Amino acid sequence: MTGIVTLLTDFGTRDHFASVMKGVMMSINPNIRIIDISHDVAKYDVEAAAYTLLCAYKWFPEGTIHVVVVDPGVGTKRRGLVVKSRNYLFVGPDNGVLIPAARRDGLEKVFEIKNEKLTLGKISTTFHGRDIFAPVAAWLSKGAPLDTVGPPLSKYEELALLKPCKIIGRTIECNVIHIDGFGNVVFNIEPQDVNKVGLRHGDHVEVIFPTTTVKARLQPSYGYVKSGEPVLVINSEEFLELAIREGNAARKYGIRRGDPAFIKL
Amino acid sequence: MTGIVTLLTDFGTRDHFASVMKGVMMSINPNIRIIDISHDVAKYDVEAAAYTLLCAYKWFPEGTIHVVVVDPGVGTKRRGLVVKSRNYLFVGPDNGVLIPAARRDGLEKVFEIKNEKLTLGKISTTFHGRDIFAPVAAWLSKGAPLDTVGPPLSKYEELALLKPCKIIGRTIECNVIHIDGFGNVVFNIEPQDVNKVGLRHGDHVEVIFPTTTVKARLQPSYGYVKSGEPVLVINSEEFLELAIREGNAARKYGIRRGDPAFIKL
Amino acid sequence: MTGIVTLLTDFGTRDHFASVMKGVMMSINPNIRIIDISHDVAKYDVEAAAYTLLCAYKWFPEGTIHVVVVDPGVGTKRRGLVVKSRNYLFVGPDNGVLIPAARRDGLEKVFEIKNEKLTLGKISTTFHGRDIFAPVAAWLSKGAPLDTVGPPLSKYEELALLKPCKIIGRTIECNVIHIDGFGNVVFNIEPQDVNKVGLRHGDHVEVIFPTTTVKARLQPSYGYVKSGEPVLVINSEEFLELAIREGNAARKYGIRRGDPAFIKL
Repeated sequence: MTGIVTLLTDFGTRDHFASVMKGVMMSINPNIRIIDISHDVAKYDVEAAAYTLLCAYKWFPEGTIHVVVVDPGVGTKRRGLVVKSRNYLFVGPDNGVLIPAARRDGLEKVFEIKNEKLTLGKISTTFHGRDIFAPVAAWLSKGAPLDTVGPPLSKYEELALLKPCKIIGRTIECNVIHIDGFGNVVFNIEPQDVNKVGLRHGDHVEVIFPTTTVKARLQPSYGYVKSGEPVLVINSEEFLELAIREGNAARKYGIRRGDPAFIKL
Repeated sequence: MTGIVTLLTDFGTRDHFASVMKGVMMSINPNIRIIDISHDVAKYDVEAAAYTLLCAYKWFPEGTIHVVVVDPGVGTKRRGLVVKSRNYLFVGPDNGVLIPAARRDGLEKVFEIKNEKLTLGKISTTFHGRDIFAPVAAWLSKGAPLDTVGPPLSKYEELALLKPCKIIGRTIECNVIHIDGFGNVVFNIEPQDVNKVGLRHGDHVEVIFPTTTVKARLQPSYGYVKSGEPVLVINSEEFLELAIREGNAARKYGIRRGDPAFIKL
Repeated sequence: MTGIVTLLTDFGTRDHFASVMKGVMMSINPNIRIIDISHDVAKYDVEAAAYTLLCAYKWFPEGTIHVVVVDPGVGTKRRGLVVKSRNYLFVGPDNGVLIPAARRDGLEKVFEIKNEKLTLGKISTTFHGRDIFAPVAAWLSKGAPLDTVGPPLSKYEELALLKPCKIIGRTIECNVIHIDGFGNVVFNIEPQDVNKVGLRHGDHVEVIFPTTTVKARLQPSYGYVKSGEPVLVINSEEFLELAIREGNAARKYGIRRGDPAFIKL
């Protein structure tokens, strides 16, 4: 254990919620180090949280414990999980949010949180981040053995975050899987897909959305086009991305996550 | 002293203000640990800050120093305070913001900040967070004795944050004391009031606001109703709360903090 | 080295970007201490970032490493820099953003980042914050000698952030250099200018913008006028500032950064 815990929630930063999780963890493990991944994930948006976790998890030291609380099912029968992957632990609700990242790292084992000695004594029905996930993560960061958490599970909620795109000749049929804070539009197209279709730097492409078509070229980075112009890049997570230099592509073209698109050479 | 200091301000996160308080504190106590409660409290809103502090303070380790800077009176005659409660210290302006939390923990003593050795050498008229409250908290976190801060006070500003609700037969007359980032509407109704009026899980209730009436049932948690439907819960701070599952109740019903309401069985 | 690194970016807080920089740094230097100055600088706004850095840098302990990633030119030929000033190091792109703060502290030497041993093995074209600036800062925080970064530079991008104002008799011709999160309007007018023109507390002043004129008095602080009234103060960074007590001056008067103004006694 590194004693590092990350937090990813939809709590926002106006309320006390995220800080209270930190207070609980520091009360259990005074040496814990807590890093915020984000508290501004769109509210109740399990897919957005899963994508953000997928982009973030692997840049932290081995042994980091990633806690995710985007949890519309809090207080119902939905279970709490600790997921062990090759290099990390993940703690959060059994709604699929942890699974894409854990699978990419190599999912090894899933435990249901059952041990009341690892949670707060009194458990609310609306804030398991504070009462269950934070204390479990803090005890794990102190070295509590994984098998004290609860029984291993063989079935748990999955989340099909990254459906593969389809390549038809020189066209890629795909979806918008994310829109980042810059308004960059991210597709479920990875470098191998780009290679397969034969797309290279400098190539002209049509990006066909249901309501609009954007013409742009694949470039190494945003600064290869003029300010205000569209550009395609392989982004830092190695997905194909449509951007506007110093602008907001999603807003300009009216694109939303989940929208279908055709990338046509 | 634990060396833990929390910060609660209305500075927002775009400007340098909050970070500068941290730089000042780290310059005085290199081993300090600083946790943000929030910097996104509504600007100048002393009541919102007091409520947020009330929800947050007790989840931190004993000896934590809570610094609050929501301070429309900065640079005037208003005094700076250190408040000692049973388990915590509170540092901030004498405008009532510290008092509800300190009272709930057991207020023991109030000191006026007077010792210039504990503040920065040059004190601006517009940023006492940086020049007074941050350095005082940092010195306290290093073990400076409380009575070096300044003289004890017997009079200071109060803030009547939580007026008790009124129970009339099977109706509770109350007020909206908070709207959280999810749009959940929090009332000044605590579990003992809920018990007194005989409200139980599953009961149908009318929530009567001046401009609208909402029918909902008390449930253990949000997930007991369908997405988009209203629900009453006892929230994680043990106040009665009106929510919409995966929605925003305050926005949908046009509710604002301070609004009166009747909860009618 | 103090092991303290600050971060100032336009990444926002919704995405994983800022946290990933932290993960990279903690992987290199487990004892690093990372403080956010802001991730909410207006996107692509190099001047706003330079101003924020100028206000923040000097409140941190000597030896602090300030990392700035507001970087519309990422992935192009623009260089990466480490700037040594009298008391600090600055790490970021060669677009002028680091220079005003470094000059004010006493700029000593500028290095181009060239040493691939100090960066990640694989460098993306769109996220040098993660691949170059974070790891370089982490290695420097561990004590890597400055001259291992790369060759010293004698030419680099400048940024004329603070053009001096002009004093004509009892009028100051100036510009709006910043609008803070409270809507306070900051001018490029420093205390020596205020003295030169003979402006004193209590004096009545006309602030003439192209589209509106505001009458206000210079006061020690906001609380010297009634709620909702305009007031001029010397702010905590010692610039002249137009504010509205418990209000938002920029919004009320329709003022934007860069607007010219005359301050007339």
